[in-house]
Amino acid sequence: MFVKRLQDDRHRIAHISITMGPIRLRRISPLTVVVIVLLCIGAITFLLSPSSRDSASAKLRKASAASNPLSPPTSPFRKQSSRSNGKRVPPPVVHYYLNNVTTSPNPVANRETVLILTPLARFYQEYWDNLLKLTYPHELITLAFIIPKTREGNAATLALQEQITKTQTSGPEEKRFASIIIERQDFDPPIPSQDESERHKMENQKPRRAAMSRARNSLLFTTLGPSTSWVLWLDADIIETPPTLIQDLAEHNKPIIVPNCFQRYIDPETKKPAERPYDFNSWQDSDIAQKLGESMGPEDILLEGYGEMPTYRVLMAYLEERNGDPKLEVPLDGVGGTALLVKAEVHRDGAMFPPFSFYHLIETEGFAKMAKRLGWSSTGLPNYKVRFQYFPRRNSH
Amino acid sequence: MFVKRLQDDRHRIAHISITMGPIRLRRISPLTVVVIVLLCIGAITFLLSPSSRDSASAKLRKASAASNPLSPPTSPFRKQSSRSNGKRVPPPVVHYYLNNVTTSPNPVANRETVLILTPLARFYQEYWDNLLKLTYPHELITLAFIIPKTREGNAATLALQEQITKTQTSGPEEKRFASIIIERQDFDPPIPSQDESERHKMENQKPRRAAMSRARNSLLFTTLGPSTSWVLWLDADIIETPPTLIQDLAEHNKPIIVPNCFQRYIDPETKKPAERPYDFNSWQDSDIAQKLGESMGPEDILLEGYGEMPTYRVLMAYLEERNGDPKLEVPLDGVGGTALLVKAEVHRDGAMFPPFSFYHLIETEGFAKMAKRLGWSSTGLPNYKVRFQYFPRRNSH
Repeated sequence: MFVKRLQDDRHRIAHISITMGPIRLRRISPLTVVVIVLLCIGAITFLLSPSSRDSASAKLRKASAASNPLSPPTSPFRKQSSRSNGKRVPPPVVHYYLNNVTTSPNPVANRETVLILTPLARFYQEYWDNLLKLTYPHELITLAFIIPKTREGNAATLALQEQITKTQTSGPEEKRFASIIIERQDFDPPIPSQDESERHKMENQKPRRAAMSRARNSLLFTTLGPSTSWVLWLDADIIETPPTLIQDLAEHNKPIIVPNCFQRYIDPETKKPAERPYDFNSWQDSDIAQKLGESMGPEDILLEGYGEMPTYRVLMAYLEERNGDPKLEVPLDGVGGTALLVKAEVHRDGAMFPPFSFYHLIETEGFAKMAKRLGWSSTGLPNYKVRFQYFPRRNSH
Repeated sequence: MFVKRLQDDRHRIAHISITMGPIRLRRISPLTVVVIVLLCIGAITFLLSPSSRDSASAKLRKASAASNPLSPPTSPFRKQSSRSNGKRVPPPVVHYYLNNVTTSPNPVANRETVLILTPLARFYQEYWDNLLKLTYPHELITLAFIIPKTREGNAATLALQEQITKTQTSGPEEKRFASIIIERQDFDPPIPSQDESERHKMENQKPRRAAMSRARNSLLFTTLGPSTSWVLWLDADIIETPPTLIQDLAEHNKPIIVPNCFQRYIDPETKKPAERPYDFNSWQDSDIAQKLGESMGPEDILLEGYGEMPTYRVLMAYLEERNGDPKLEVPLDGVGGTALLVKAEVHRDGAMFPPFSFYHLIETEGFAKMAKRLGWSSTGLPNYKVRFQYFPRRNSH
């Protein structure tokens, strides 16, 4: 039993290990969430080690830890001043003055918390390295991952865990995140392979994206807290972003904002580095797509980027101009999720990722439509780029 | 600023006070959530007071507190055994073995956590007294409230807070809940009055229930944790339930289950106590309602219980039989939210309360439809009753 095991395991909590055994759940659900690891930071380490009490950064982290009621790993009761005679006397009621939880164009100055959500199937070191380079104050960032219960997922969990331990315990203090949550799915992905070619087959899109929606929803519903200001959805394949990604996107002060996702590659003809648009889910709607939707069955979904289904939507992928203004905004009707900044109140209002046909849309595109139904619009930045991984060798094995 | 104020307030954390001032938010959102009070229990009190370390109940609470990563108020790092030489040495990684987080017909034996969610506009002492009588182990229950930012809401918050303090600090240990969260909305309710007659006017239904949906979604998204097994939606007007409500509903092992909501009243003719059905949102669909929906505009919603809009749906309210089997189950297409037990995985999958017309349904009825789209069905118990408040005098002032 749960309580029992926790007590049994108490003597080895300082060790790092992952349970990989089969899950014995008595659930009906095809999708349940298993939290394996809660990593709590820097914040805790510094809170409790007297030697660091005096540093400014430690103070910040201390305040952040006590004040940040993001879900699991935060610990609202670590207010050290409530000791009397060396004995901790906990208050019966703890107050949080969250009146100033804003989502503003200047989130750093307003100490706004960011929850970075990543559905992770494979771990790329470049993803992690890019995350570490983000200049948004790491003590305001909580990371949360959901990882499928597959062999690939197990490997990804191990690799991720290793990097987390390195960053959070022995790395430089300012690189440590406020908290990190890893959740494991216990349902099998509908498509066995994560290979590019399989993933993108048109007939695989609906089950694949329905499963992805459920994973996103599970991650979102279990990690969003009342004091979260922003949610940054960041795919595990995003290996390159400007280090000021969060500040740059937040500056636009939009409920939902999405950069343009490109992929660097080696041109097979010229053998030279080149880049190409990657994410086709950010678009402006067209009459043709609308009519196509009307002619479909209620469960059918419109897909973008497939020659078999021409939608004539305006794709943000093709709106990019070389050396164009990175601050240029375009309104969008559908968004992609490779990188996507959302004000937390949009999600709190109820905007989730429909795993079913919602106005013939699914997943992130359905999310944009649902947000629209809730009164929130989406914005795209065609000239502000993030980069998707391109490691053909790694993908092939 | 947030961090600043927290530090300033540190010296008075043992006091109980509520900030009631106007909210200075820079948000765009019409609905944001302000957490004013996080109450953390029993669990904390007993965890940290050495005198209670030895009691069995305290041990249970201790395990529960450490193991229960429900959002804000839990504190996963209170594993006391990690001290060495009297100094706390926090582990870099904390593991939670949640493989056994079940939603089973026997939730007490499986130590399943229950999150009771209550949108609260008025505080009824009878509601709180009934809550205290629930025999489900209170150390497995987290309560969370969302209260509108109105004068009535302020009064309700004060009254609730008073009872919470009494229960959690001076009441008997076994009555204390694992944790309690109060959130305040900062948007005005669409209808100024909570009076019965105003609330139930047909033209007020859509804005009222859209606002209620947003409140429910905010509460749900910010309090659901990865280890929550069950979510019990319980209206603040429910003043009488069987003490075994949670066990009785869970025993059916259904994803969504709803008892029949009745109201006791004094018959004006006979002057004798009587009872009448109250909640008409639990129903089985009809062809007529379906066709009515098809003839409506995309934003229009179907309403139940109004003579102007006969739907000929089968209402659970009228399926009750005197002395009928309380375990009798009927399948439902729409559900009411006065009392509603939902497996947490249904919500995690993405089932929320649509504040917009969803298949011409809204709020809890739209929720049942959305759950259906996600593959989860709803069940009603026509002969298992809970009671809605009836205090005509209080309502009139």
